[in-house]
Amino acid sequence: MKKFLKNVRKIEPLVHNITNYVTVNDVANVILACGASPIMADDIGEAAEITSICGGLNINIGTLNQNTIPSMVAAGKKSNELGHIVVLDPVGAGASKLRTDTANMLLKEVHFDAIRGNISEIKTLMAGYVPEGYDCKEDGVLQTKGVDANVADKITEQNLDETINKVKAFSRAAGSIIAITGEIDLVTDGNECYVIRNGRKEMSKITGTGCQLSGMLTAFLIANPDNKLGAAAAAVCTMGLAGEIAWKGLRRKDGNSTYRNAIIDAIYNMDGKALEEGARFEVK
Amino acid sequence: MKKFLKNVRKIEPLVHNITNYVTVNDVANVILACGASPIMADDIGEAAEITSICGGLNINIGTLNQNTIPSMVAAGKKSNELGHIVVLDPVGAGASKLRTDTANMLLKEVHFDAIRGNISEIKTLMAGYVPEGYDCKEDGVLQTKGVDANVADKITEQNLDETINKVKAFSRAAGSIIAITGEIDLVTDGNECYVIRNGRKEMSKITGTGCQLSGMLTAFLIANPDNKLGAAAAAVCTMGLAGEIAWKGLRRKDGNSTYRNAIIDAIYNMDGKALEEGARFEVK
Amino acid sequence: MKKFLKNVRKIEPLVHNITNYVTVNDVANVILACGASPIMADDIGEAAEITSICGGLNINIGTLNQNTIPSMVAAGKKSNELGHIVVLDPVGAGASKLRTDTANMLLKEVHFDAIRGNISEIKTLMAGYVPEGYDCKEDGVLQTKGVDANVADKITEQNLDETINKVKAFSRAAGSIIAITGEIDLVTDGNECYVIRNGRKEMSKITGTGCQLSGMLTAFLIANPDNKLGAAAAAVCTMGLAGEIAWKGLRRKDGNSTYRNAIIDAIYNMDGKALEEGARFEVK
Repeated sequence: MKKFLKNVRKIEPLVHNITNYVTVNDVANVILACGASPIMADDIGEAAEITSICGGLNINIGTLNQNTIPSMVAAGKKSNELGHIVVLDPVGAGASKLRTDTANMLLKEVHFDAIRGNISEIKTLMAGYVPEGYDCKEDGVLQTKGVDANVADKITEQNLDETINKVKAFSRAAGSIIAITGEIDLVTDGNECYVIRNGRKEMSKITGTGCQLSGMLTAFLIANPDNKLGAAAAAVCTMGLAGEIAWKGLRRKDGNSTYRNAIIDAIYNMDGKALEEGARFEVK
Repeated sequence: MKKFLKNVRKIEPLVHNITNYVTVNDVANVILACGASPIMADDIGEAAEITSICGGLNINIGTLNQNTIPSMVAAGKKSNELGHIVVLDPVGAGASKLRTDTANMLLKEVHFDAIRGNISEIKTLMAGYVPEGYDCKEDGVLQTKGVDANVADKITEQNLDETINKVKAFSRAAGSIIAITGEIDLVTDGNECYVIRNGRKEMSKITGTGCQLSGMLTAFLIANPDNKLGAAAAAVCTMGLAGEIAWKGLRRKDGNSTYRNAIIDAIYNMDGKALEEGARFEVK
Repeated sequence: MKKFLKNVRKIEPLVHNITNYVTVNDVANVILACGASPIMADDIGEAAEITSICGGLNINIGTLNQNTIPSMVAAGKKSNELGHIVVLDPVGAGASKLRTDTANMLLKEVHFDAIRGNISEIKTLMAGYVPEGYDCKEDGVLQTKGVDANVADKITEQNLDETINKVKAFSRAAGSIIAITGEIDLVTDGNECYVIRNGRKEMSKITGTGCQLSGMLTAFLIANPDNKLGAAAAAVCTMGLAGEIAWKGLRRKDGNSTYRNAIIDAIYNMDGKALEEGARFEVK
């Protein structure tokens, strides 16, 4: 795991983010914390050009609008053209027709190296693919809890193997690494699947830990082009482990705001050895 | 007071926010801190649909623009149609014609369960109503200190009874709970008025404590449909008390940024007993 | 130095910001921390009007777009007309044609009392001026590291005198105070140049310390119309010194997120005596 983080710190990749205005500041600080450098630019007049000077692009649809959707497409296509990394965070896919349609349109127009979301968001995207005979619509995609995962969708030890198979199939169909984060995280390239058990449930009481991870994941992929699956898994482990380390350091009166700061701090201070020892995963 | 907070934590309401980009991250974290769940969506292509999956809508005009104003109307009307909670935070009403006109237009197009602002903002709205014979324009509405309350407008022990009467009249005319926050807070449904003395003046040195309160207040109303006045007062007490608790925990070198985090933490850790004992109010 | 800070706290200037959504919350909290009051407004329907009730305007092109660029021009022209302070932060000038062109257009349409950027951004603007015989294009303006300064552009003890001469020439040509921040900061009105050595390199691991400084600098200029150069230098020293004080207070586990909060806290708690003693500068 540690070489992936080390490469981010060595290469200091520049990450172009077209992201929501809710969590954008934390996304920028997490990208800096892991050793990369962020730039945000969402106007159609510069989106493709900014992407061309960066190592990769992180598209997050958290507060998508009519002005930024064309910028996502233009920047995504340019990034593809240049062979740069592109990551999608389909925030709230399933919560509105606009989000679902935009996510599906982006999957059609742009090739993504990786897609990171919660299980409900990924199930929504899977429904658009009907990958290899699975009818994902039966899984109740139309239920939504806004930008949070639906409890009914939760990955458990019981449905783990079945879910892994479905997600692998979706990964192959989309040609993208799929990273699903929640109590159990899955990261697959369609062939192997990392099952990751880092993190704490209290991270869901902070807005944007998912968005932050997508930004950091983009940096990890840029810095590790030879092993994107490993790099994606390392980014997910880094975020989860930072959540564990930060939690241990909290005092009695601390709450979700201090926890937010402490997680970013823990990423800033994460060393390769701690990551290597703290990463809890198996490959299936 | 404690049952109102307890209900938020039990029901975990989903709150749709069309809000400004200055304080949006803190609004999201405060909504999470009190036990609810936030979603931000302001594009006309999804605003009404997102509102329909939520328990209520928080409209904040802090960085209103030509794209988001129609979304506010569409989401507000949809929320009214569905009988959902709608709250208005008229940030900076009185500071520009666009803000004043938009706030007045929203009051005409949408029914608000509650309106929360500082005294200058609420006086600006009252001027549009000329409620029951009071000519609020005489009170100097046209003076403004941007998004802060004008010192000349300040609620004092001397003008308290007169102000309560005026605000009650406005509440009846608008059919909305009015919550005015400042050194003394007033929360009225036109019949009863909570006079609340929680909080600290240093809270005004943090951007967005008002915006945060409006988000939390929306959650409290959604979770307590049977006693909206009590719920609104409980939200105001929770914010003020959190400001007091957080202040006590500060160290010598801490300033407004740490105070900001500590207030959100204090809401996260607020228990019903502390709220019951710490809430300082009388009903007039 | 201390009188400049004292005046900000006495006058409590209202600062209008048309700024990016990445760092806007920190900009607002820093403006509050130094004793001023922020308002953000970027819609063309109110930008000029909001500027007219403020003491000054801070234009930051960090996430510029087709809607906000006309607002920058309208507000800038109104501010000029009223004799109010106007500051430009040309975030990412040189990183895209849109940013470079917008910055150059703004320089043509609006008179700026001060322009604050990193060395790469300022070099980009200087290239548009070809001031007094220097051909700045030779300095490699077209290289860019996004919103960060290019290492090749770095101000060092070796190129200091030559850089000062060029920046002074640019300051005279533009008729604006130029503030370049980095390891060594330069602040000049074309005649004298403050060479400031406050700050820490770790500040570059926090998003938006530059944006924060531009907001604070606007407040300092508004409050000190009789000595704008001194006021600008004092704002730069305050930011750098806050970075030093905050760093000293960090604990072993703290990272860039806690550092961010601690810097804002240090500005909040900065007293005139500490600033006077801690400011490290020479005038050339």
